[in-house]
Amino acid sequence: MAEAAALGSAARGTTAPNPNVGCVIVSADGKVIGRGATAPGGRPHAEAVALKQAGKRARGATVYVTLEPCAHQSERGPACSDLLARAKPARVVIALKDLDPRTAGKGIKRLRAEGIEVKLGAGRAAAAESLSGYLARLNLGRPRITLKLALSIDGKIALPSGESQWITGEDARRHVHLERSRSDMILVGRGTYLADKPRLDVRLPGLEERSPRRALLTRGEAVDGWETLHSPEDVYRLHDVNDLLVEGGSATATAFLSADLVDRILIYRAPIIVGEGKSSFGYVGLDAIADAHGRWRSAGEQGLGVDRLEVYERVRDA
Amino acid sequence: MAEAAALGSAARGTTAPNPNVGCVIVSADGKVIGRGATAPGGRPHAEAVALKQAGKRARGATVYVTLEPCAHQSERGPACSDLLARAKPARVVIALKDLDPRTAGKGIKRLRAEGIEVKLGAGRAAAAESLSGYLARLNLGRPRITLKLALSIDGKIALPSGESQWITGEDARRHVHLERSRSDMILVGRGTYLADKPRLDVRLPGLEERSPRRALLTRGEAVDGWETLHSPEDVYRLHDVNDLLVEGGSATATAFLSADLVDRILIYRAPIIVGEGKSSFGYVGLDAIADAHGRWRSAGEQGLGVDRLEVYERVRDA
Repeated sequence: MAEAAALGSAARGTTAPNPNVGCVIVSADGKVIGRGATAPGGRPHAEAVALKQAGKRARGATVYVTLEPCAHQSERGPACSDLLARAKPARVVIALKDLDPRTAGKGIKRLRAEGIEVKLGAGRAAAAESLSGYLARLNLGRPRITLKLALSIDGKIALPSGESQWITGEDARRHVHLERSRSDMILVGRGTYLADKPRLDVRLPGLEERSPRRALLTRGEAVDGWETLHSPEDVYRLHDVNDLLVEGGSATATAFLSADLVDRILIYRAPIIVGEGKSSFGYVGLDAIADAHGRWRSAGEQGLGVDRLEVYERVRDA
Repeated sequence: MAEAAALGSAARGTTAPNPNVGCVIVSADGKVIGRGATAPGGRPHAEAVALKQAGKRARGATVYVTLEPCAHQSERGPACSDLLARAKPARVVIALKDLDPRTAGKGIKRLRAEGIEVKLGAGRAAAAESLSGYLARLNLGRPRITLKLALSIDGKIALPSGESQWITGEDARRHVHLERSRSDMILVGRGTYLADKPRLDVRLPGLEERSPRRALLTRGEAVDGWETLHSPEDVYRLHDVNDLLVEGGSATATAFLSADLVDRILIYRAPIIVGEGKSSFGYVGLDAIADAHGRWRSAGEQGLGVDRLEVYERVRDA
């Protein structure tokens, strides 16, 4: 299931509004005979891709899939539960039930009716992580929102003059491009747009095609080639975005934090001291230090050249 | 040598102006027969402590010591090179030559003259780290200066009101007390003194006796029980301090950074966002981001409950 989740993760940012599912098929004698992820644009589904690879060898095999196979036929292809019923694997191991009302247990029922053994819940955490954008949309009615910032040790994003190039180094910037490629949409504020006219594209070999849609947070006029959000709450209108990456600047980050519309923060931390300079955020509604605790948890980190990436996740009551 | 360095490290903050040396004696058949570190107040020396433990078994053994054994007799005890000459180990392994002109190679010469094999340079890095305060005093003419800060993700030390209790949790605060116990002197600014009247003592079981001297950075009047530094440059007058810990607040930290009188920064980082609040530092003389790079390097980190300790070291040309 770990490999299925990794396959799904790699497809993040390309499948919305469909989930970025991963699927691995293992033969009775333990060989991997099929691998798949939801294809760009959402079709074909991961199971279809993996089953096509496996061919007739799928009979009697075990299928690992991160999300319950769909039960609804579409103009764009058959239901995966039907495909599986036809392929006749011995077992289907599913990490997560699908909450989409068109499936929601019907896929599992269909498989069991065909005499296929179904196991539920294996590798749940990894699968949920890989599908976090899709799950946020079903659970919260909006994309998963990631806020990205390049900061100094002392939390500054720029000098008082606004100069911010470059806080972090080449490795960190490459990682940002990878994160972009895994987002369906990137958003900046009007100030950042005017100051930098950022391309917000993915400049990584082999991933140039994966540059996400661009959006501007502004109460003003729309800009050609950019979608417009008038306020952070407009994210509830983004029904075809699983993963939204907010890239700044400070006013935009502050607006999203104040609205409690950030699920994950990526801090690219450079080992530099800026001193007097522009702070990461303005007033976010905090009036006592005690109220700041318990909202965020450290969710990993890694070195990126001389810089470090710190990942924080919003702690939400289930 | 790693163990000798660890023994020396544990004595940091208690031996100034003497070096906090560590010593381990291993018998010919590989058993540790003596362990020692410089005793509180600086005497007896590490070698004397370890040789006393080993007794007659030191003959033919190997002595590991982080710093060249002293060659100068003192009213407070015999020279360690004389003690070693009498104990007749087969070998003495020394990590670092002593730069103190009273020893500076004379200790090694004395041992070799007695027919004892001397090996130099083993475990240099660990020994230098454990002796960094003493070495700073010899090389830079002042203590090693560590700046400690408790910060939020966004680099704030307090709310706009000044409220800063508590940014970090119990584990981080305990670690601060450990760092205090390894310092000879702690310094705060007048603002912090007036606001918090901090005790700056060590409140850890078994280490209460290791509360360091307290100093105030102020152009104003002295305060009872506190030593006074009128400017950061006064550290050059502290001939009996190996390790100085600067605990804040922002104005004091900024003054030390502006004077380039910080060797190490300890950031106790809490997973909280403060937003509008007091920044870590004011203007430190930086006018272009490019000039900020290459001055600090990440020198390790560790989790402390929900918080993290980030250690940075000043990069200085050798």
